[in-house]
Amino acid sequence: MQADGWQAMKPGAVIEQRRPDGSLRHLITLEDLARSEIETLLERAQYYVREVGQRPPASERLRGVTIANLFTEPSTRTRVSFELAGRRLGAQVVNLEVQLSSRAKGETMLDTIFTLQALHFDVFVIRDAEPGVLSHVAAHVAPHVSVLSAGEAHLSHPTQGLLDALTIRQHKGAISGLSIAIVGDIRHSRVARSAYHVFRALEARELRIVAPAALMPEAREFAGCRRFERLEDGLVGVDVVMMLRVQKERFAQSEVPDGDEYFARYGLTAARLARAAADAIVMHPQPMNRGVEIASEVADGPQSVIRAQVSNGVAVRMAVLEAVAGGMAA
Amino acid sequence: MQADGWQAMKPGAVIEQRRPDGSLRHLITLEDLARSEIETLLERAQYYVREVGQRPPASERLRGVTIANLFTEPSTRTRVSFELAGRRLGAQVVNLEVQLSSRAKGETMLDTIFTLQALHFDVFVIRDAEPGVLSHVAAHVAPHVSVLSAGEAHLSHPTQGLLDALTIRQHKGAISGLSIAIVGDIRHSRVARSAYHVFRALEARELRIVAPAALMPEAREFAGCRRFERLEDGLVGVDVVMMLRVQKERFAQSEVPDGDEYFARYGLTAARLARAAADAIVMHPQPMNRGVEIASEVADGPQSVIRAQVSNGVAVRMAVLEAVAGGMAA
Amino acid sequence: MQADGWQAMKPGAVIEQRRPDGSLRHLITLEDLARSEIETLLERAQYYVREVGQRPPASERLRGVTIANLFTEPSTRTRVSFELAGRRLGAQVVNLEVQLSSRAKGETMLDTIFTLQALHFDVFVIRDAEPGVLSHVAAHVAPHVSVLSAGEAHLSHPTQGLLDALTIRQHKGAISGLSIAIVGDIRHSRVARSAYHVFRALEARELRIVAPAALMPEAREFAGCRRFERLEDGLVGVDVVMMLRVQKERFAQSEVPDGDEYFARYGLTAARLARAAADAIVMHPQPMNRGVEIASEVADGPQSVIRAQVSNGVAVRMAVLEAVAGGMAA
Repeated sequence: MQADGWQAMKPGAVIEQRRPDGSLRHLITLEDLARSEIETLLERAQYYVREVGQRPPASERLRGVTIANLFTEPSTRTRVSFELAGRRLGAQVVNLEVQLSSRAKGETMLDTIFTLQALHFDVFVIRDAEPGVLSHVAAHVAPHVSVLSAGEAHLSHPTQGLLDALTIRQHKGAISGLSIAIVGDIRHSRVARSAYHVFRALEARELRIVAPAALMPEAREFAGCRRFERLEDGLVGVDVVMMLRVQKERFAQSEVPDGDEYFARYGLTAARLARAAADAIVMHPQPMNRGVEIASEVADGPQSVIRAQVSNGVAVRMAVLEAVAGGMAA
Repeated sequence: MQADGWQAMKPGAVIEQRRPDGSLRHLITLEDLARSEIETLLERAQYYVREVGQRPPASERLRGVTIANLFTEPSTRTRVSFELAGRRLGAQVVNLEVQLSSRAKGETMLDTIFTLQALHFDVFVIRDAEPGVLSHVAAHVAPHVSVLSAGEAHLSHPTQGLLDALTIRQHKGAISGLSIAIVGDIRHSRVARSAYHVFRALEARELRIVAPAALMPEAREFAGCRRFERLEDGLVGVDVVMMLRVQKERFAQSEVPDGDEYFARYGLTAARLARAAADAIVMHPQPMNRGVEIASEVADGPQSVIRAQVSNGVAVRMAVLEAVAGGMAA
Repeated sequence: MQADGWQAMKPGAVIEQRRPDGSLRHLITLEDLARSEIETLLERAQYYVREVGQRPPASERLRGVTIANLFTEPSTRTRVSFELAGRRLGAQVVNLEVQLSSRAKGETMLDTIFTLQALHFDVFVIRDAEPGVLSHVAAHVAPHVSVLSAGEAHLSHPTQGLLDALTIRQHKGAISGLSIAIVGDIRHSRVARSAYHVFRALEARELRIVAPAALMPEAREFAGCRRFERLEDGLVGVDVVMMLRVQKERFAQSEVPDGDEYFARYGLTAARLARAAADAIVMHPQPMNRGVEIASEVADGPQSVIRAQVSNGVAVRMAVLEAVAGGMAA
């Protein structure tokens, strides 16, 4: 346990995520989760992990529970991952093309939520590009309803953070001894923010963020992280390299190096990866821009654990769904 | 039982909705349903009602039954409501983006229907903007197939009518003693027409329609209803106020007061609601245009039963699905 | 068994479709299936056939199996047919709007496939307009994963070929004694190619293709088939008339007779059908262009088995899913 460094900052979460008995009700951010809560989720997720080629786990733990998948941004991968997680626990999952955040009128959003609640949905899995929508919904639903983030603006993507942590644990053991570098568009990344929260809670030894100046977060964020503008410097000796997807629209900003230039400076090649620890692992939340932020030799190389991340995604979502809704099953 | 007034008109339904043994096969309109048939459906629906927070009902009554949700107009709310109703009865429900009414060629529509029939769909739940499509389909399907309306043009929305009746019964008891006002764009409203049919069959004491002249139905329709152009007059002493959604495109008509003006004249405020009976309830089929046809103080106020309507929607659809398809389950 | 004629050509299939033990793993083409393999599939499909009005078959044979429906071309009919087939065997079926063939970058397509594999999908049902995508996917998936074609470019539509064969067997008995004419846009038709493969494997007595010159396939294709430009000639004495849908965009080609002209020369009318055997059957893969390639008097006439084809489609897909995934069920 360290008294200083990046674990020091602890801003309060926007909304209470727990029930009066302390159990997890919502999962909108990892910011206020204790180490023990996270470890309990990761252990349960590990229980649901299966190798590719094995049968997926099947359970009736959430029989009678109805889950709404509300995605206002496209995301086949995460949507399907939640859908399969719910169905493999015996829940009913309905995909809805509801426009949650009719940005002008908060009341209309709540009307939609109350309607879904009246249809006896118990869990709302929400992806939304507008910051605050999830907390707003969570603050208004009935006591038995849970709200899970499937990605909120640039702020948070908690199940991604958990699956990243699970993947590291599987390959490197406890996170507390590790040095981890997050590389790319940190400024706009919910993946980076949730990774930061979970690695801080699990007391990683060192956390680095690596980005061009224009994609660095503001100084008040990512407190305690070491910042690097040169990828070669940021990778030295790290145990985990977590690459981020760079959105092509960022290249329109004059300060951001564009495609080829980005790869020349920030693309993870085998030569650059050699600066990390010899047994370092490489992660990416997908979808990858091969030849932009990552070379195929690395993405498909022996140190890549990118495919394991996807499998872990279903297991983590099963653990989270079970944690928030397991008590309500029929 | 009254011999005169608005219950007098009884136009024949377009198609026979019953099987030779008298049981319900299709539900396309409430126009020809007897009071006893409606009451049987409402009682069964009541059996499936659950409070928000309770587990939804689960049944295997429709196991082996396959339901097609055919929506050619967008409607998340009603589609999901039918989907959940079917699944909670153990049926398989498939959502289809089939274009039913290729308006030029009736044969093509029937080819689609025969194809779905050959796939062993037993129930077609259809929403369509074109009058007559549902009856046309119902007239051609095989004897074991049922057709349910989820909203047909401006003509009919029978499950909405039933859920409205169920909601009133829950809050006010028998409908036969009540005075009910329907307010808004009556002329274009299938909700109003189905409400009219069900309240007439259940022998409401008095039915009023309240609308600007341009949104009043033709004189031959809504026989027996008292017509009001001033909302203040129409509300006096009623037990139930049923507000309708006004479509923004109506405001383009020069005779229709637009947004603010509409609210000034036809918006249901607390002050206006005070003209109704002290224990009057307020209904709305949703989605609401708050600040246009209804003030939030009323929508969210103690007399509002709007959320109960949604819950009742699933229960009513379960009762209807069970009525038409319960005999065919494996 | 004939030594010459159209059964002679036997080009190798693009990819090995069988497991080392000889069992069927993928179904991308019928080109290399032996008569005995096809007959085994057809017999199993027949086991799953139900009359319209009977309950569809229900089984738990694929319990624990997860099927991805990946359609990059619209096809409600075939998609729903696969969905129902999977669900009626107890599998979980997820419809995905994944863009498989990001044409520029093969790697991206494989990333998508590996992601789905990591989500524990066992079967990929793929429709794609780009030739070769299915074989490419099949060549890269893990050993336990199966790839099924739901239509590949103009090349192949194997479950359609099987359902066509099943339909003929039901009405005419063994295919080996029959003369079959395929009529229409042979050149661009995957339906025609899969029909050709299955009828050749089942040793039809004679196979004819009938088309305007511009829609005839190249000479090296459909080896052994008799070619006719005049429909009247091609129909003489045949036992089966298989009509193809003509795409309206073909009429833009100057060599192709357009709508009315097409019907005048290639539309199947009762008068023309009279040239076939008295008990000839008429097939069409749907959707039909009535009044273009087929007259309603024929489509709805006593010799039409078009609706039976649809029912057989679900049964065939059940048999195929069971064949490739039956061994992996939990």
